[in-house]
Amino acid sequence: MAGAADPRPGDPLFAPEHRDAAFDWLCGLGDGALILGHRLSEWCGKAPALEEDIALANVALDLIGHAEMWLALAGEVEGQGRSADDLAYLRDALRFRNPLLVELPNRDMAVTTMRQFLFDAWHLPMLHALSESASPRLAEIAAKARKEVAYHLERSQDLVIRLGDGTEESHARMQTALERLWPYAGELCQPAPGDAALVEAGLVPDMAAVSATWQEILDETLREATLERPEGRADVQNGGRKGRHSEHLGFLLAEMQFLQRAYPGAEW
Amino acid sequence: MAGAADPRPGDPLFAPEHRDAAFDWLCGLGDGALILGHRLSEWCGKAPALEEDIALANVALDLIGHAEMWLALAGEVEGQGRSADDLAYLRDALRFRNPLLVELPNRDMAVTTMRQFLFDAWHLPMLHALSESASPRLAEIAAKARKEVAYHLERSQDLVIRLGDGTEESHARMQTALERLWPYAGELCQPAPGDAALVEAGLVPDMAAVSATWQEILDETLREATLERPEGRADVQNGGRKGRHSEHLGFLLAEMQFLQRAYPGAEW
Repeated sequence: MAGAADPRPGDPLFAPEHRDAAFDWLCGLGDGALILGHRLSEWCGKAPALEEDIALANVALDLIGHAEMWLALAGEVEGQGRSADDLAYLRDALRFRNPLLVELPNRDMAVTTMRQFLFDAWHLPMLHALSESASPRLAEIAAKARKEVAYHLERSQDLVIRLGDGTEESHARMQTALERLWPYAGELCQPAPGDAALVEAGLVPDMAAVSATWQEILDETLREATLERPEGRADVQNGGRKGRHSEHLGFLLAEMQFLQRAYPGAEW
Repeated sequence: MAGAADPRPGDPLFAPEHRDAAFDWLCGLGDGALILGHRLSEWCGKAPALEEDIALANVALDLIGHAEMWLALAGEVEGQGRSADDLAYLRDALRFRNPLLVELPNRDMAVTTMRQFLFDAWHLPMLHALSESASPRLAEIAAKARKEVAYHLERSQDLVIRLGDGTEESHARMQTALERLWPYAGELCQPAPGDAALVEAGLVPDMAAVSATWQEILDETLREATLERPEGRADVQNGGRKGRHSEHLGFLLAEMQFLQRAYPGAEW
């Protein structure tokens, strides 16, 4: 949508006083989906089982679809004519707002599966809460995405349990994956300073409520998977909402953005 | 050098009838050095021994320096004002003319070391022959590069012998590396159709002479390294001079060119 933002009388998401915080928040959600979708796409043609290969590609496509909706909305809120494609392909790492968890390399199926579960267990409660947003536009996207993410969580939860309560090797790999990812997991539930006003306006949920549900899902699933919840803090690695990313994101963007950077304005 | 090519009366490299073939040939040499230099730079900070880390970085720097000279000359010959940077950072894979060998992933130290030796054993004889080129400009660059490449070959030859005639494990890894790289090795000595006129003009050497020296160096070194020369053909994988590259080059360029693509015209 080119040109000035349509003020959408009645949708508080477009109130001028929320502009910067809302843009930032929407990028957080959109970038998380985009970067995780990209990481999952890296398995395409390389997964250990055909059914898993197809499933991962499907989850990736769902997430990239969500990213397109969130980033398009972010562009509208920003009001400078940037499209979802502009935001996805022409920002550098410092401008991305995804949590660090999703930019980590895939490494192996244990890390990939555990990462997905940790993310899905936060993503579904977040979308449930967002479906009640005071912004009809935001609620509408959340309601659409929620159906697919319910399936994502069902899948990843099931895999964590089967692999955790599996063979000695699968259990060991899943426990190692959990310990490796744990310092990054807590960032999902960390609010950013600008969020308070959005929460007050009923636009986005309070992170504490989402976090509580996330913790419940974690506890229940890890118990059934016979996995030990690590003892250290889960929020040690953070900074994504401030654009402070790990070394990995730059390399990911170099691949993801190459075509658009090398051939600006190219179309199919 | 901007603007039209300086015809350089007296240097046959700039004769109009040689323009396309000479440009292509110079890119072959420059791109080979550039891509191999990039691959070696990937070891920086990650090599198994500090001395090796520093040595690889130094070889990489030498090669990138050569690439700058060859590509700058290519740009002059082309006469459209393209600089070495333009050629290095703004061409896509289809326009690169390096042999496939140098774009292969590093994989491990055995492959890296064997790849380096196979390349150096061709590179030094090539530069020796080029030092006799009918083109003073070309001969001048070759004479400069030759000193550094003599050291490259000394190093890689020594490592191949020490690792080949080493422990059971190092021997096995080097033999495996040789078998893996062998189908790519022969491309180094393959001429392209346009080369014939350049050979006739005394600008570049006949590949047969370079190839004979390359084979000698290989035979002598592999024998001392107690490694078996593979039986299959060495020239099965090819196409680099036609811009027909492996899947690997695209990913390499995405990383190598990201900065220049994302920030066109940026300067220090």
